[in-house]
Amino acid sequence: VVQADDVGPVTVGIVVIGNEILSGKVADTNSSFLARELRAVGADLRRVTVIPDEIEEIARTVREFSRAFETVLTSGGVGPTHDDVTVEGVAGAFGRSVVRHPEIEQALHRHFQGKANTAALKMAEIPEGAELIRGGELSFPLIKIENVYLLPGIPEICRQKFDVIKVRFARGAYHLKALYSRRGESVIAEYLHATLAKFPDLLLGSYPRLGDPEYAVKVTLESRAQAYVEEAFAHLVGILPEGTVVRTEG
Amino acid sequence: VVQADDVGPVTVGIVVIGNEILSGKVADTNSSFLARELRAVGADLRRVTVIPDEIEEIARTVREFSRAFETVLTSGGVGPTHDDVTVEGVAGAFGRSVVRHPEIEQALHRHFQGKANTAALKMAEIPEGAELIRGGELSFPLIKIENVYLLPGIPEICRQKFDVIKVRFARGAYHLKALYSRRGESVIAEYLHATLAKFPDLLLGSYPRLGDPEYAVKVTLESRAQAYVEEAFAHLVGILPEGTVVRTEG
Repeated sequence: VVQADDVGPVTVGIVVIGNEILSGKVADTNSSFLARELRAVGADLRRVTVIPDEIEEIARTVREFSRAFETVLTSGGVGPTHDDVTVEGVAGAFGRSVVRHPEIEQALHRHFQGKANTAALKMAEIPEGAELIRGGELSFPLIKIENVYLLPGIPEICRQKFDVIKVRFARGAYHLKALYSRRGESVIAEYLHATLAKFPDLLLGSYPRLGDPEYAVKVTLESRAQAYVEEAFAHLVGILPEGTVVRTEG
Repeated sequence: VVQADDVGPVTVGIVVIGNEILSGKVADTNSSFLARELRAVGADLRRVTVIPDEIEEIARTVREFSRAFETVLTSGGVGPTHDDVTVEGVAGAFGRSVVRHPEIEQALHRHFQGKANTAALKMAEIPEGAELIRGGELSFPLIKIENVYLLPGIPEICRQKFDVIKVRFARGAYHLKALYSRRGESVIAEYLHATLAKFPDLLLGSYPRLGDPEYAVKVTLESRAQAYVEEAFAHLVGILPEGTVVRTEG
């Protein structure tokens, strides 16, 4: 049995807030974007949960995630309308009140050229004691409270804001190698199992594909230790029956 | 204040199981498909959670969902490889053991023409006492235990299997009307709020769109009571400032 020489990753949970996703009107693309970005910098996304625009649900879920994971990202519910209750929910998770922040209020007045109404000024509300993060192309700062970052639901702005904090999640990237198998999962399962028995720290994925003439399964091998993934990959390719591997990657 | 005349919907939670989604390799499309389908038959999807291929995490999450919602759907982790541990996790949620079901075993032997190996036969495993559901185009039955249905991760088969049980979620469909607003959320928020104050049972959604020359916000109004949504829609259109509504739907 070969152990990987590794450092612990940042553990992350994502809370997606929005009735529009649960009712099938909008497909959430922020969580898959964040999943790819987090993986690229070596963070360990442990859970994604989609919940409705309800203050109590948000408070309960954010509190649970905040205890379970090193960092929490929320997505959605930070606009000016009746269903934007994320700030209130997150404040509730930590027993904080909601206050209006003068700096954001001023930015909103500038943005709306002096015509910011009550609805617009709602966007200046933050949980009491929250930190404001500025940078990049941001017109408005990102709100952080305890270990929770509040990202907006609109994909373009969510990406802009995440870009500013991305570096905080980097603790050594993953190395990935992949192979494409002509034979199905039932045939190759025993060889995957044998490889995992020898390399227990390997992250091994098996993704069947229906109706593709080229291959039946894509197998991925990952570790933050490059030598480990190389060695495990060589082992697996060595034990698979001849003619199984169509091509490799990485 | 106008109350809607309504019957309670089926409440649903979805547990998506798969490291490949959390690591950003594969975008989950099953939950957005299921969200649309559930909405179309009037069910109330309350929560979607994506968790890793870990028996304990699956058992804990499924147990929690099973208590919180009338029906639970799981997606993924039912194939033949090392990372397919959903059956074991769901069995654990209810303190059941895992047993091999003779009917599925025979179907697998036929499918693999007598060459079903140990890995393939893993797909004949079910939580003890589970119900098998047959129908439609299904080659293999769908597994149900307590209030939990096990759907596969492969989208085509997930859809086939859901089609067989879809009718169980129908308890009166939603009626939807929509309008497209030329003005932004900050401007229309007060009119949405006033409509909701008068029609508190209305499901009212507000979806800003960036950079579209035609409109700035799509507003949706929904209820399972058709007259209620018609009345609320007429009210909102009546109070919005002239020139706000670009077009309507429904």
